[in-house]
Amino acid sequence: MRLKNIKNANKIIENNPHFLKNPTEYKTKFQTLFDNNNKIEVEIGSGKGSFIIKKALNNPDINYIAVEKIPSVLVSLIKKIEGKNIKNLKVICYDAEKIDEVFYKEVDRIYLNFSDPWPKSKHEKRRLTHHIFLNKYEYIFKKDSIIEIKTDNKLLFAFSLESLSSYKYIFKYISLDLHNEPKENILKENIQTEYEKKFSKYGPIYKMIAVKKCQIISK
Amino acid sequence: MRLKNIKNANKIIENNPHFLKNPTEYKTKFQTLFDNNNKIEVEIGSGKGSFIIKKALNNPDINYIAVEKIPSVLVSLIKKIEGKNIKNLKVICYDAEKIDEVFYKEVDRIYLNFSDPWPKSKHEKRRLTHHIFLNKYEYIFKKDSIIEIKTDNKLLFAFSLESLSSYKYIFKYISLDLHNEPKENILKENIQTEYEKKFSKYGPIYKMIAVKKCQIISK
Repeated sequence: MRLKNIKNANKIIENNPHFLKNPTEYKTKFQTLFDNNNKIEVEIGSGKGSFIIKKALNNPDINYIAVEKIPSVLVSLIKKIEGKNIKNLKVICYDAEKIDEVFYKEVDRIYLNFSDPWPKSKHEKRRLTHHIFLNKYEYIFKKDSIIEIKTDNKLLFAFSLESLSSYKYIFKYISLDLHNEPKENILKENIQTEYEKKFSKYGPIYKMIAVKKCQIISK
Repeated sequence: MRLKNIKNANKIIENNPHFLKNPTEYKTKFQTLFDNNNKIEVEIGSGKGSFIIKKALNNPDINYIAVEKIPSVLVSLIKKIEGKNIKNLKVICYDAEKIDEVFYKEVDRIYLNFSDPWPKSKHEKRRLTHHIFLNKYEYIFKKDSIIEIKTDNKLLFAFSLESLSSYKYIFKYISLDLHNEPKENILKENIQTEYEKKFSKYGPIYKMIAVKKCQIISK
């Protein structure tokens, strides 16, 4: 992906009312941004935003926050919502590695869609399902930890199954071929990402919903 | 699979010294069948036996027990070991549903290779990774529970991931394409079953090693 006109990108993004310029200022206070007590769900690595925008439009009773690191990528997302006012959608430009600088005990669900697989084993610490990241997510979840993952990368999916299971997540839903499931196994809502629309013809899309119940330890 | 000459099948099987005619008599005493204290590993649904025979030959320090329900299928296994004396291999003819009639606290590892996927959801209780079966396995494991699964059926594999994870198993190894793993992810030993040799060209072979640590609860 070519990254040009970063300066312009920043300007386009910052002028959009869905965009939060200083997200760390809202830490522990994200709920106040939405005029309700609805759940907050975060997509890490929103890319061009098809998924999270449609998610927000389909589910007005859930609040969504799109997190994307690269301003030039965010421009595509912002352009899709220009002139609109999607009340249950906010957008931030931040690095997933520092997600715990932004949120604390206020997120109900995380979506990781077609994350960078970092295929070399020497880079596995950069995969968004490595324990390093699961630790950070633990910090930002309000109560139960719920992560939904979609990828076409079988190595990343296998790695994520190992990593999440050893972190005590339980898999409530697994598909090894999301677009070709038998009727009784089809998810109610599968919103396709830009990448998914383009690449699902080349091989299976893997999907999981992983849950870790919050353990309240009584004294 | 045609099941003919059952009578003959029983005779062929019963005459073989590896075969245990009344396996329930050895319950809690399987170790005595082997002149050692080595681990005991069980394959449930051994079919024609390629896997377990080669496993036994490759690993003389582990004891193996092949469990197969259908005598006519066992004949193929028995014929492969006729005239041999594989000291670390025993064979029994028994239904997996009653595996807890045969063993109690004496099994170290279970192999489920290309088990019947029972694809209709109304039959899911018959899948060998349903909680009904995991309960029985719990009863036969000596200490930690270790289950290795190989299949080419993505629905059975997905079901097993969900079922085992909710039964608190952790996945130590997952492959979504066992025959095409990058070097660093290849298992030391993959012994192919008859079915695997024949059908792996039509699609991926899935593999998992799932472990549940024995919890000794102190009073």
